[in-house]
Amino acid sequence: MPTGTPATGTARLSLATVCLSGTLEDKLAAAATAGFDGVEIFAPDLLADPGSPAAIGARCRDLGLSVDLYQPLRDIDSTDPDRFAANLRRADATFEVMAGLGADTVLVCSSVSPDAVDPAADADLLAAQLHTLAARAHERGLRIAYEALAWGRHVDTWDASWDAVRAADHPALGLCLDSFHVLARGSDPAPIAEVPGGKLFFLQLADARELSMDVLSWSRHHRLFPGQGGFDLPAFLAPVLAAGYAGPLSLEVFNDVFRQSDPVRTAVDARRSLIALAEATALAGAGTDPVATAAPSLDGTAFVELTAGPELGRVLRALGFSRTGVHRTKQVERFEQGGARLLVNAAGTGSGAVAAIAVETPDPDASARRAARLCASPVPRATGPGEAEFAEIPAPDGTALFLCRTSGDAGPDSTHGPAWPHDFVGVDEAPAPGTGITGIDHVGLTQPYDAFDEAVLFHRAVLGLDPVGDGEYAAPFGLVRSRALADPRRRLRLALTVSVLRRGDWSPAVADPQYVALACDDVLATAAAARAAGVPLLAVPANYHDDLAARLDLPADTVAAYRELGVLHDRDAHGDYLQVCTELLGGRLFLALVQRTGTHDGHGWPDAPVRMAAHRRSRLARG
Amino acid sequence: MPTGTPATGTARLSLATVCLSGTLEDKLAAAATAGFDGVEIFAPDLLADPGSPAAIGARCRDLGLSVDLYQPLRDIDSTDPDRFAANLRRADATFEVMAGLGADTVLVCSSVSPDAVDPAADADLLAAQLHTLAARAHERGLRIAYEALAWGRHVDTWDASWDAVRAADHPALGLCLDSFHVLARGSDPAPIAEVPGGKLFFLQLADARELSMDVLSWSRHHRLFPGQGGFDLPAFLAPVLAAGYAGPLSLEVFNDVFRQSDPVRTAVDARRSLIALAEATALAGAGTDPVATAAPSLDGTAFVELTAGPELGRVLRALGFSRTGVHRTKQVERFEQGGARLLVNAAGTGSGAVAAIAVETPDPDASARRAARLCASPVPRATGPGEAEFAEIPAPDGTALFLCRTSGDAGPDSTHGPAWPHDFVGVDEAPAPGTGITGIDHVGLTQPYDAFDEAVLFHRAVLGLDPVGDGEYAAPFGLVRSRALADPRRRLRLALTVSVLRRGDWSPAVADPQYVALACDDVLATAAAARAAGVPLLAVPANYHDDLAARLDLPADTVAAYRELGVLHDRDAHGDYLQVCTELLGGRLFLALVQRTGTHDGHGWPDAPVRMAAHRRSRLARG
Repeated sequence: MPTGTPATGTARLSLATVCLSGTLEDKLAAAATAGFDGVEIFAPDLLADPGSPAAIGARCRDLGLSVDLYQPLRDIDSTDPDRFAANLRRADATFEVMAGLGADTVLVCSSVSPDAVDPAADADLLAAQLHTLAARAHERGLRIAYEALAWGRHVDTWDASWDAVRAADHPALGLCLDSFHVLARGSDPAPIAEVPGGKLFFLQLADARELSMDVLSWSRHHRLFPGQGGFDLPAFLAPVLAAGYAGPLSLEVFNDVFRQSDPVRTAVDARRSLIALAEATALAGAGTDPVATAAPSLDGTAFVELTAGPELGRVLRALGFSRTGVHRTKQVERFEQGGARLLVNAAGTGSGAVAAIAVETPDPDASARRAARLCASPVPRATGPGEAEFAEIPAPDGTALFLCRTSGDAGPDSTHGPAWPHDFVGVDEAPAPGTGITGIDHVGLTQPYDAFDEAVLFHRAVLGLDPVGDGEYAAPFGLVRSRALADPRRRLRLALTVSVLRRGDWSPAVADPQYVALACDDVLATAAAARAAGVPLLAVPANYHDDLAARLDLPADTVAAYRELGVLHDRDAHGDYLQVCTELLGGRLFLALVQRTGTHDGHGWPDAPVRMAAHRRSRLARG
Repeated sequence: MPTGTPATGTARLSLATVCLSGTLEDKLAAAATAGFDGVEIFAPDLLADPGSPAAIGARCRDLGLSVDLYQPLRDIDSTDPDRFAANLRRADATFEVMAGLGADTVLVCSSVSPDAVDPAADADLLAAQLHTLAARAHERGLRIAYEALAWGRHVDTWDASWDAVRAADHPALGLCLDSFHVLARGSDPAPIAEVPGGKLFFLQLADARELSMDVLSWSRHHRLFPGQGGFDLPAFLAPVLAAGYAGPLSLEVFNDVFRQSDPVRTAVDARRSLIALAEATALAGAGTDPVATAAPSLDGTAFVELTAGPELGRVLRALGFSRTGVHRTKQVERFEQGGARLLVNAAGTGSGAVAAIAVETPDPDASARRAARLCASPVPRATGPGEAEFAEIPAPDGTALFLCRTSGDAGPDSTHGPAWPHDFVGVDEAPAPGTGITGIDHVGLTQPYDAFDEAVLFHRAVLGLDPVGDGEYAAPFGLVRSRALADPRRRLRLALTVSVLRRGDWSPAVADPQYVALACDDVLATAAAARAAGVPLLAVPANYHDDLAARLDLPADTVAAYRELGVLHDRDAHGDYLQVCTELLGGRLFLALVQRTGTHDGHGWPDAPVRMAAHRRSRLARG
């Protein structure tokens, strides 16, 4: 683990214990393992721990973690003087805990209580109560970081919290800014740059998908790590840094999935998100990250490596691929057609799956160094003498990512040897005539349930891909979420899917399907040639084509051809997406022939339920 | 399966295929197995089926199912005449499908399209277009059931849809009423009674929890079967029946969990919900259900049967229970203290679990007949000669429910023999002095993921319990949902919990905990006596008690006693809930000593996370 790497230059990285699953013990160990510098300790985590605050503080120090924040102290101010006095007694107990922990800052949330002080009615009272609280903290050498909850009863925007802090005017009172509360309310973060940096006591970062639900539920269940959702976090972080904020970058992410996932894995994902955010902010001209480097400009897919299913070699030949080489030392064959290169690996169990995606990058060394800085270090690979030594990085779903070049020699500064095609020796076979396949359109990968958001961030950060599609559809055996990522030039596309709810016992669907979508310019011609050569094309129900004809008002001969070849056709305002799928080649893998028209940027999701039902049916029919 | 039972008198029961998981084949088979009379076929289910509409219609008839509705036809009206003409062509294709299916009614949803006709701007145009559509359907002997989606662009309330139907004035055009769309908008259903019954073409029923989210997401993901949520469905159904509606009672429930659960099980649950709803509506004075019977008035828990964990017998004696009998023919011992009766069954694997809950009901025969009518038929039981023959009904989580009597003889009309205590022979042991336990407060049961909502409905319908609590809390290894049910007199309480997301691989928590909460009047005295006798009480962290003392301002000696005995203390406006738990007695079972003050109606959920962390810790410590 990359402990101690100065991955974001000077900023310290911190993680709230609420982000992770487990008891406090699990959470602290995970944060340390992932290389965090500090933690925010969530009060309920401490209450359930058998150690005293002092023992917990010592445990943190032993793990190399500072306790950057204790949180939260809720509903402090009150229009009822007796209640406020009782609240101060609660605060004293919290200060006692903090003294034990060795934490100097406590998060105070704006009140949600019916007796909260309304500054519009009595700004002086709120200021006076916050001043009293801060003075009490100050006596003990502690600080109050005051935060506006987006659903606070009266104080519910960051500028309202800043008004209160200014009015209270105490050196031990400052702001806690939380990107969720600011961005979920649609507030403009730019004016934060005007706040004196010394008054920014703490910074909490979280991303989120755009969801239309009440902001409290959105916040408590669906926060994400920066880069996993749709918030513009660099535009939030930049003014905070410009104001002079010098504290840690800390993540506070309430997420139902992360709450029950392996905390070490979540913590590594979390740290990657902060490094990528610091980098993106620095590259946008703000911040002072001295090691920011732009993501590589990708040149497409060098190859996709498949483990050999029962019929894969035969099907590729019938699809018009030429076998152009065999690996010098491994049981791997190379197939090519147009710009599509597929390797078939005969080692292993051979049930058919995507083993690796090789990405074409102009400087594989630099790409690998950058990946390592993003908590995605290359793993050791067995390489024969004289073979290309390219970096292999495991993606969250276990697929290997290779960073490599297809052509050219290594430059003088490279530690790499020859490009990967040198690893193959030619075979004495006549080239196949082809069926019109021109390249690889995209690769579709079902993600493990816990790894979906992690995978989006991983590919976004490590490969510099952008999200280009976000969907959800009702598949026959449950809802499926999908996200597509691509480079700006659309040379590399990945389509990721996951069950919205983790699969249960009732699940007769094909488990975790994967596919390679092969691009062609005339899918009807390519599919017809493939069918004639014996490729097992997936049958599509006549009902689907009847409906399609009525919806799109298609000519009868087109519909007849669609029926014959099993074409699925999706149309949107930008163009059309036509696909013909093979039956399953093994347990989970299939190939798709894909034709795009116009600037259609989709991945066939509207037709996925029909395809999934058909794959299940064909598998049952074949026994 | 109860096919053909006239369970709701005259009403036919129908199920929308969207309610179920699977392909159309799975769904139709499940609806038939559960005993439904008909189905609504959802267009995407048909499109993915390889059979022609005629073949699908024939399959339905073979299964004894009528096709009561085909659905939906969307976005029909349009301010653009060309678009409306194209929409009519789509409608023709739909009518063609319906002719094949043998379905005479199609659901037309109010449009959500930007080009939808706004009746406020041009009521005549909407009326004319609906009239045209209805006339076209009428030519083919078909009918249009027009429904207001709660998120329709202009028509979004049931009365707006009724205005449109009245204005269009065509005999083949009527209303489809959907309880979700009516109740989610807070509309008053009472005026539905004024609509001519002949204009009510179709009725869709769905319940839902009160959730604060956009109504579209709420509708598409979180609908429930009647009795599982918070809507007052009898108050909705009554005016519909009063208006003279004579069509089927049909369920249309979009639910993320049901979409991926065993469809047969879901369909049985669905049918139970309709029978219970018809009964509740009839008992409230509306409808004509001739076999409605009120749920039995329960007299409490006759006994709870536990499978013997490693220490169970010893712990019960240390808790002050007396062993008062052994079963005549089975390896079962009877323990009693106050009104608490526990049976310990030594047969089986003996890892410790709740095997059965025996409910005290004045007329076990009538209760069993009613259960059978609610798709909860008693299962055969091995009973020795002369032993009590009480009904055993498996609850959704596999726990057995027994319907029985503790005292008295069978009445003249009963087929039952003696009350259950006759099955035990006395033992020659001195009664234990007791520790102050007075009865069984409640039983806590973790539910299988797919069975949570089913379990709520099951206990509500079969036992006549009411929901008395609904919560969600962040447990150490993921969020937990909880619902409590109780009879009106609080003689029987059940607390059900489930993971909000299905458990994954990372889950070091105690799996599926169960407990029996034993009532006492002075939990400190009872726990002290138990500890002195060697009961392994669960240690609670000092941090918890420090926080509790600050929150509730408790006297120092109370806090000291709490620390010593591991008391968990929850307070709300109604009173206090104090509990002391044992360590785990086997893999998942524990006992709790519970004292309530005032009218506190909770079940200790705020303290469950602390308890769960402590149980995991004590289990790890014991190895």
